[in-house]
Amino acid sequence: MDADPAADWLEAVRFNADGLVPAIAQDASTGKVLTLAWMNRDALARTRASGEAHYWSRSRGRLWRKGESSGHVQRVREIRMDCDNDAILIMVDQVGGIACHTGRERCFFQRLEGDAWREVEPVLEDPATIYGNG
Amino acid sequence: MDADPAADWLEAVRFNADGLVPAIAQDASTGKVLTLAWMNRDALARTRASGEAHYWSRSRGRLWRKGESSGHVQRVREIRMDCDNDAILIMVDQVGGIACHTGRERCFFQRLEGDAWREVEPVLEDPATIYGNG
Repeated sequence: MDADPAADWLEAVRFNADGLVPAIAQDASTGKVLTLAWMNRDALARTRASGEAHYWSRSRGRLWRKGESSGHVQRVREIRMDCDNDAILIMVDQVGGIACHTGRERCFFQRLEGDAWREVEPVLEDPATIYGNG
Repeated sequence: MDADPAADWLEAVRFNADGLVPAIAQDASTGKVLTLAWMNRDALARTRASGEAHYWSRSRGRLWRKGESSGHVQRVREIRMDCDNDAILIMVDQVGGIACHTGRERCFFQRLEGDAWREVEPVLEDPATIYGNG
């Protein structure tokens, strides 16, 4: 895979001091915001080259192809950037209909109700099944 | 205005080392992702207390009520948080239909086409008019 690391379009992106840019994934069919994750230069280049979302895992300190363990790949239809060149929006087809590691459709399942965060979206599949524990 | 700085729900949010959390604003009517900006604890508290989006301006180093200069306020219908408690999603009504300081509907107006970013959304109003320059 040609990850095209020297391309001019990558030069335009303003990565932060850690070399990262926030990337929003929005479901191209439903319009729901699925995830906010982080891309470094390599992750963004690979996302574009492969057509599948790649991120930088800050907790694991490594490049991560979304769905590499779960199969819940994000197929990229479109890549956008904001006015300050420091945020990315990708429109995706979410394979399996599950974007969140908790087994929910998306990560933004907590809604502020009064003074409390409530979990308002169901777990669609047990993470132990998704990730093949045991 | 009671910004409710000691509320438990705020304790749950994992602000980064700079005391900030990324906040996505999505148009509640159209589903379009309008902006990605940053909130500190005070901005999030004020957003909830006032029902209007407040952010922390990293460039200006101060709290900022969205629309305070332009009139393009974001009225908040819903506040959500992701699975890691480190990203916020607000569903908003965008007053004036313009979220971006460039006079466009939203900030994500650059689309990657081949090897180049293209501006694919029109300027709806001249920023000089919006911000009353001159």
